Amino acid sequence: MRDETIFSLDKLNEECGIFAVYGHPNAAQLTYYGLHALQHRGQESAGIVTTDGRFFRVHRGEGLVNEVFQNKTIAKLTGDVAIGHVRYAAGGSGLANAQPLVFNYVDGELAIATNGNLVNGSKLRRELEKTGSILQTSTDTEVIAHFIARSQKETLVERVKEALHYVVGAYALLILTNDELIVALDPHSLRPLSMGMLGDAYIFSSETCAFDTVGAEFLRDIEPGEMLVLNREGLQTTSFAQPERRSICSFEYIYFARPDSDISGINVHAARKRMGRRLFAEAPVEADVVTGVPDSSISAAIGFAETAGIPYELGLIKNRYVGRTFIQPTQELREQGVKMKLSAVRKVVEGKRVVMVDDSIVRGTTSRRIVNLLREAGAVEVHVRISSPPVNNPCFYGIDTADRDQLVAANHTVEEIRKLINADSLAFLSIEGMLEAIGRPSTEHNRGHCLACFNGEYPTAIEQEKVVEGNK
Amino acid sequence: MRDETIFSLDKLNEECGIFAVYGHPNAAQLTYYGLHALQHRGQESAGIVTTDGRFFRVHRGEGLVNEVFQNKTIAKLTGDVAIGHVRYAAGGSGLANAQPLVFNYVDGELAIATNGNLVNGSKLRRELEKTGSILQTSTDTEVIAHFIARSQKETLVERVKEALHYVVGAYALLILTNDELIVALDPHSLRPLSMGMLGDAYIFSSETCAFDTVGAEFLRDIEPGEMLVLNREGLQTTSFAQPERRSICSFEYIYFARPDSDISGINVHAARKRMGRRLFAEAPVEADVVTGVPDSSISAAIGFAETAGIPYELGLIKNRYVGRTFIQPTQELREQGVKMKLSAVRKVVEGKRVVMVDDSIVRGTTSRRIVNLLREAGAVEVHVRISSPPVNNPCFYGIDTADRDQLVAANHTVEEIRKLINADSLAFLSIEGMLEAIGRPSTEHNRGHCLACFNGEYPTAIEQEKVVEGNK
Amino acid sequence: MRDETIFSLDKLNEECGIFAVYGHPNAAQLTYYGLHALQHRGQESAGIVTTDGRFFRVHRGEGLVNEVFQNKTIAKLTGDVAIGHVRYAAGGSGLANAQPLVFNYVDGELAIATNGNLVNGSKLRRELEKTGSILQTSTDTEVIAHFIARSQKETLVERVKEALHYVVGAYALLILTNDELIVALDPHSLRPLSMGMLGDAYIFSSETCAFDTVGAEFLRDIEPGEMLVLNREGLQTTSFAQPERRSICSFEYIYFARPDSDISGINVHAARKRMGRRLFAEAPVEADVVTGVPDSSISAAIGFAETAGIPYELGLIKNRYVGRTFIQPTQELREQGVKMKLSAVRKVVEGKRVVMVDDSIVRGTTSRRIVNLLREAGAVEVHVRISSPPVNNPCFYGIDTADRDQLVAANHTVEEIRKLINADSLAFLSIEGMLEAIGRPSTEHNRGHCLACFNGEYPTAIEQEKVVEGNK
Amino acid sequence: MRDETIFSLDKLNEECGIFAVYGHPNAAQLTYYGLHALQHRGQESAGIVTTDGRFFRVHRGEGLVNEVFQNKTIAKLTGDVAIGHVRYAAGGSGLANAQPLVFNYVDGELAIATNGNLVNGSKLRRELEKTGSILQTSTDTEVIAHFIARSQKETLVERVKEALHYVVGAYALLILTNDELIVALDPHSLRPLSMGMLGDAYIFSSETCAFDTVGAEFLRDIEPGEMLVLNREGLQTTSFAQPERRSICSFEYIYFARPDSDISGINVHAARKRMGRRLFAEAPVEADVVTGVPDSSISAAIGFAETAGIPYELGLIKNRYVGRTFIQPTQELREQGVKMKLSAVRKVVEGKRVVMVDDSIVRGTTSRRIVNLLREAGAVEVHVRISSPPVNNPCFYGIDTADRDQLVAANHTVEEIRKLINADSLAFLSIEGMLEAIGRPSTEHNRGHCLACFNGEYPTAIEQEKVVEGNK
Repeated sequence: MRDETIFSLDKLNEECGIFAVYGHPNAAQLTYYGLHALQHRGQESAGIVTTDGRFFRVHRGEGLVNEVFQNKTIAKLTGDVAIGHVRYAAGGSGLANAQPLVFNYVDGELAIATNGNLVNGSKLRRELEKTGSILQTSTDTEVIAHFIARSQKETLVERVKEALHYVVGAYALLILTNDELIVALDPHSLRPLSMGMLGDAYIFSSETCAFDTVGAEFLRDIEPGEMLVLNREGLQTTSFAQPERRSICSFEYIYFARPDSDISGINVHAARKRMGRRLFAEAPVEADVVTGVPDSSISAAIGFAETAGIPYELGLIKNRYVGRTFIQPTQELREQGVKMKLSAVRKVVEGKRVVMVDDSIVRGTTSRRIVNLLREAGAVEVHVRISSPPVNNPCFYGIDTADRDQLVAANHTVEEIRKLINADSLAFLSIEGMLEAIGRPSTEHNRGHCLACFNGEYPTAIEQEKVVEGNK
Repeated sequence: MRDETIFSLDKLNEECGIFAVYGHPNAAQLTYYGLHALQHRGQESAGIVTTDGRFFRVHRGEGLVNEVFQNKTIAKLTGDVAIGHVRYAAGGSGLANAQPLVFNYVDGELAIATNGNLVNGSKLRRELEKTGSILQTSTDTEVIAHFIARSQKETLVERVKEALHYVVGAYALLILTNDELIVALDPHSLRPLSMGMLGDAYIFSSETCAFDTVGAEFLRDIEPGEMLVLNREGLQTTSFAQPERRSICSFEYIYFARPDSDISGINVHAARKRMGRRLFAEAPVEADVVTGVPDSSISAAIGFAETAGIPYELGLIKNRYVGRTFIQPTQELREQGVKMKLSAVRKVVEGKRVVMVDDSIVRGTTSRRIVNLLREAGAVEVHVRISSPPVNNPCFYGIDTADRDQLVAANHTVEEIRKLINADSLAFLSIEGMLEAIGRPSTEHNRGHCLACFNGEYPTAIEQEKVVEGNK
Repeated sequence: MRDETIFSLDKLNEECGIFAVYGHPNAAQLTYYGLHALQHRGQESAGIVTTDGRFFRVHRGEGLVNEVFQNKTIAKLTGDVAIGHVRYAAGGSGLANAQPLVFNYVDGELAIATNGNLVNGSKLRRELEKTGSILQTSTDTEVIAHFIARSQKETLVERVKEALHYVVGAYALLILTNDELIVALDPHSLRPLSMGMLGDAYIFSSETCAFDTVGAEFLRDIEPGEMLVLNREGLQTTSFAQPERRSICSFEYIYFARPDSDISGINVHAARKRMGRRLFAEAPVEADVVTGVPDSSISAAIGFAETAGIPYELGLIKNRYVGRTFIQPTQELREQGVKMKLSAVRKVVEGKRVVMVDDSIVRGTTSRRIVNLLREAGAVEVHVRISSPPVNNPCFYGIDTADRDQLVAANHTVEEIRKLINADSLAFLSIEGMLEAIGRPSTEHNRGHCLACFNGEYPTAIEQEKVVEGNK
Repeated sequence: MRDETIFSLDKLNEECGIFAVYGHPNAAQLTYYGLHALQHRGQESAGIVTTDGRFFRVHRGEGLVNEVFQNKTIAKLTGDVAIGHVRYAAGGSGLANAQPLVFNYVDGELAIATNGNLVNGSKLRRELEKTGSILQTSTDTEVIAHFIARSQKETLVERVKEALHYVVGAYALLILTNDELIVALDPHSLRPLSMGMLGDAYIFSSETCAFDTVGAEFLRDIEPGEMLVLNREGLQTTSFAQPERRSICSFEYIYFARPDSDISGINVHAARKRMGRRLFAEAPVEADVVTGVPDSSISAAIGFAETAGIPYELGLIKNRYVGRTFIQPTQELREQGVKMKLSAVRKVVEGKRVVMVDDSIVRGTTSRRIVNLLREAGAVEVHVRISSPPVNNPCFYGIDTADRDQLVAANHTVEEIRKLINADSLAFLSIEGMLEAIGRPSTEHNRGHCLACFNGEYPTAIEQEKVVEGNK
């Protein structure tokens, strides 16, 4: 059993959202709104830690931001510095894993929140346990905290730097004590992290959309391997590692980020529309209507429709069932036709040749279901267009794709996939097409993107065990 | 004080959603999904009453459907017949007004749920009170129930018919006893109400989108003045009133209904896109981007953009704050820029000439705020296009417009409104344009629509006092 | 089915507690504490209505006072006049029946709360329904409200008087409008109701213990058939009926009231101790320890022990499971010995001759269970002494005794009961002994007590149907 | 600030209750009832951990047992082994400190729950932190867990033994893994811990009263320094330390334990009654009534009254405000007389010479308040009798007495205290009188009791810093 647990820990998906405020009297409430704007990055749990310079105030819970926090809980989170976290958990869940994690160590209280995934997390965890550490969660975040606690360096900054030398992977990191806020980004900047200002207060957020929500101004993105230290003496920046070649996760553009966010200066909605335009250019088709799979594919579908001159219609509707309290239909009701997520709109698709634009195909099961929904609603042809390249390789940096043997594109040709999903035609966007559509003005390798899931070129070393696991 | 209360009762807005199941073992759970699909019609409260032929089971509460009901509450709602209600309350609120209302009267238990608004509700209420009745809610629904209870007719059907002779207005009506389900629609069919089937069970819903959610098939719309009676002997249809000319509320198409619903056989999204197309034809403009005000104006904006050949972009983002538990920002935070509902996306609108498509202008304050949001985000020109005609007259049938003196179009020219909302240009869709865009294949007066808010032609008599109130 | 419902309505037990404040800025909070002090009179639901002279504020819920009310709900109950209610429901339950009930009638809002039970409630209910009234609850309280609403008298006071002419039974009554508070007690004063003062504010309470809790001073008891009217002109007293001979419910002294309350100037704990003393005098026994059944029999047991010179010990312990949320043991766990209510203390009773003092025997099943508990814990003899006379007749005034055929003393001799409950000896207190022990300084018939459950002399007329029901 | 925190950690009061089940299919539900029976030992938080031999199930929360657990949470706690904890926290609180604590260490999952207090807890904590451990709570329990994790011994039993060599103080201890349950008691058995059986299942409980509740049979008390190990091979007993002289906390008899519990074979109620009897013998007084301070002094008051021949009456009533949700009165309402905890019953004490029996005097403030309550209610004389000796020294083993400078008896004569509390006379029970009244059949030093708070003879070494703190 123990090995299974370790295995599941490695699989634990840590795509999340983080947000911080330094120097604002309403730090907790701003963080609440910020986390709400990042809700799409994690619905499993939410948490905020504040400090007034003397004490921590902590509140965490399972569920959506507005389920976890009420007026009275926010009111108790006093202080002008706050860090917050929303968590998406593909694997282990539970309140214990809700972040920010809070620890007592020799110099006092320490809170830590991360977005990302370590590739050597389980190996480090075993090392810690063998030498007498007690770990309370299954998060990589706690592993980092233990290395900070074990460091014999004098200052917290030095300790954090030492700890980060052990870890390999994708991570955006917030560390809070009663004296300091430390912000760090992995040497490849695999995850997005930006800095803004609201009056005199500094704001940090996984995505820029949260700046708009709280009325903050965007300042700049955090650099690869950069560490920012905010304390009474102001803000200092330093590097904790040799910056590696920038490798921003492509999937942030493809489906993870909110369309109104800018990543590396590029608006996500606009990038998606360009992917849709390019997709039509690469794989045109004659049809009566274009429809997108809500929500992440709508922008690409509109771009596709505009270029194609085919009307864009609402052929698919997403049921916005929210929160953890929603009652799931029984298997019996499902079979009778109760739709949990998507419905096809008969009036729109009946008798029509439909182009269905989706952002990606991972296992292929969802695509098949949607194609069938459209056919049942009367579509005479269903042409599937995917606004990203085929996913051939597992992600070790936090995107919940799948093991290699579950990735339909790792084991099948496009024509085989077309048959599997029951489409009349199927086309993916090319890697080059995607990179041009995103259009980062970069001369860097891969234009500064991580393309590992498309071409297997992982920007970091990958633990041998993990690749084996991924392959088996 | 008493008069104020009566006044506020008249103003009470009763646009809501109703749903019923007759003859399905999971009647309550289906109703739960149906009400969820109708959630946009009312977020104030939700309720379901079921019967197993012997006893009622009742659960109602304030809040969203998934806040009000949990697995355990649904499990208690046994029986194969259910009626449900979601409530939107512009005026009085509170749990007491949550529907369906349940009464004990001489023949047993009776539950009643309505969508709509009576124009003579307050007059009837005063008559009842003067003669010794006790009313527990401020709803028109209860007024109808009292007239049913007072009737000396023998059968429930006859009693309901007698009661409905007293009432004037817009109403879709569900009445449940332990023996029967009665469904009725006002003689002008001001509110939508459709019938579907799921296996052998009958389903009734304010909108057809709920049929898709529960897997039911659409059968037909309920006719003006029609009353359906479902009991052990099956389904009988009858008329309780001379059907008047059909007068479907135009605002259902313009903004109230869900885009994937069909009203009178016309898909709402498609109608809105045609309104957008027609709007460009009537009021063209040169611009760089088209954006719609989420959610109800997106379809019209896409139609406008397609016809204009201007790219449609996500220039405005709606923050989907859900539920009653969301923490409201303080005035101070609002002033600092915390956005509660809409944000403009700087990257999309900065330096651009923007067409902002909205579905309607009522008071004008929202439009001015959105125009300013776009300008603050860097838009160089903001052209406002409204996909409906100017609203000049108050609605007495349940749409929460406003009193006449608050309707900006009742007292200002289009040019005056343009200045008020700070737009570079402003245009409304014409009445004729709207009717053609909706495109009901009708030879009826006004093509079968209620246009009262646009042209003052109310399909029913209006109580004198009410017009006075509206005018003052 | 309908008849069953009416039947169950008649059976509905309405022993409850009421509390009112007139003229204190913290009226709601004081009522909260008052109701908490009356919690033993009803745990099913609680409710408070306040008025600021213009509007009602209402909060009711199922459960204990401290489950139903939170700081924020109390904060919303503004105004300096409040009435409150805790409800005990042997029959029908549910939030709908929670009091105070609130109605809109022709003159405005009206709230009403009662403690007691009508003997002609179901007959009046049927009369109301036949003539078109809609009743929403199964309470007698609502019946009274409808007669008030139907009255054509000019003032509320006249209307209430007219309404009370129709009703027969036991009732302490609070009626609140935005202008007035009306307090009334049935012509036999079957239920207790007292008046106190806190500064300039008037306080009314079912029991005087609530005066101590809120710091109020006891003024006097309400008289039979008295009606008090409090409004801007002060407090007026009047009689709404010919006062009948006073008939205070004996069971208030025996077990219902709190030991620190005074009823008719007699402290309940002291009366119970005297009953215990008298009980020993009437039925002495040799034994090693005396123990009482918690909580209501402790005082009598101490009195018995003091007089007998036998040590009083804690031989039985009550598990204070509180609230509606307590998890009930499964049948299996019960059989394995999980005790829900009482445990016997082995160390105290093992090898001992035990006198178990209890306040009453109704069905006999509880007594048998307790005797067996004591025997299983090692008691060598169990002598049962009951500090009240045998209950031979059902109560129609609100005490939850039972139908006649379930009353063990109605159908068995004392010796038969002794065998049934497995006791070594059994004795009841005599009626005369009980009356002397209570010791009301009265020359009235029965010393001013209702003794109907002991001797069948009902102070009011009893509806024929009820007696039949009771007898069958 | 850091020093303050350490200080407060030392002050953290760990008087609690623990309960365990080994080998019963309803382990969690039995533990729920067991903890409920131990509720008086801690109302701050409650928790249960179960194992089915493969996985832990954990639920903890702040509040009473029946607030923390619902049917659904208990249903999730599957497995036939369970440990549970209720926590009383004088110092730090919060969910993080709720027990049982659960850790991942190198051999898997480990849960731990303790009752008691270490005297070298803060020193050990600092040692752990200096060498890189992260502590998440302010409990001594976590300190023990870290020493277990750091041990390099092979088996868990050896590790626990090694860890317990470091700790000094009072502790009853439960340790659970997926394979084993370990139960241990400190070498002086300062805290009570007993073993029972329910069918084939072993039950462990801080007090025997919980055995009665779940229907278990008492087997024996755990011995000083004993460690029990329960696993598939059955139950083994061993000693982890040289048993020291038995030193059961006297305050368990005086006020902490439930009256129906037996400690070391002596019933607590009976011991208290004997203390009351002895108290009258040592300090007789002429009076009219005897009253006890609820709940813990009732037994002693009854004993006093029986011996004195003075009637025992309910002169003081405790308001059983339960749960964390109770609304506290404002200062204003308190001053107006709203009583939160105790009321004096005027009818009982007015014009009387009252003996008020209480179990102890710590700071003296409570006694003064109660004497004044009695005087305000009309008592003409108030004689205070305390059924334990004067408390002169702080407790370092978990009883929430106070620092020495707050202990009124440490700095005042009995006559001075009498004046301070405004009594007509005051007497304490002698140490010898108390020991004889408890009556442990023991030839051990101090009859096997810890008397440190009375005579300063601490059974263990006390950290120098602590005494200093206590003295300052």
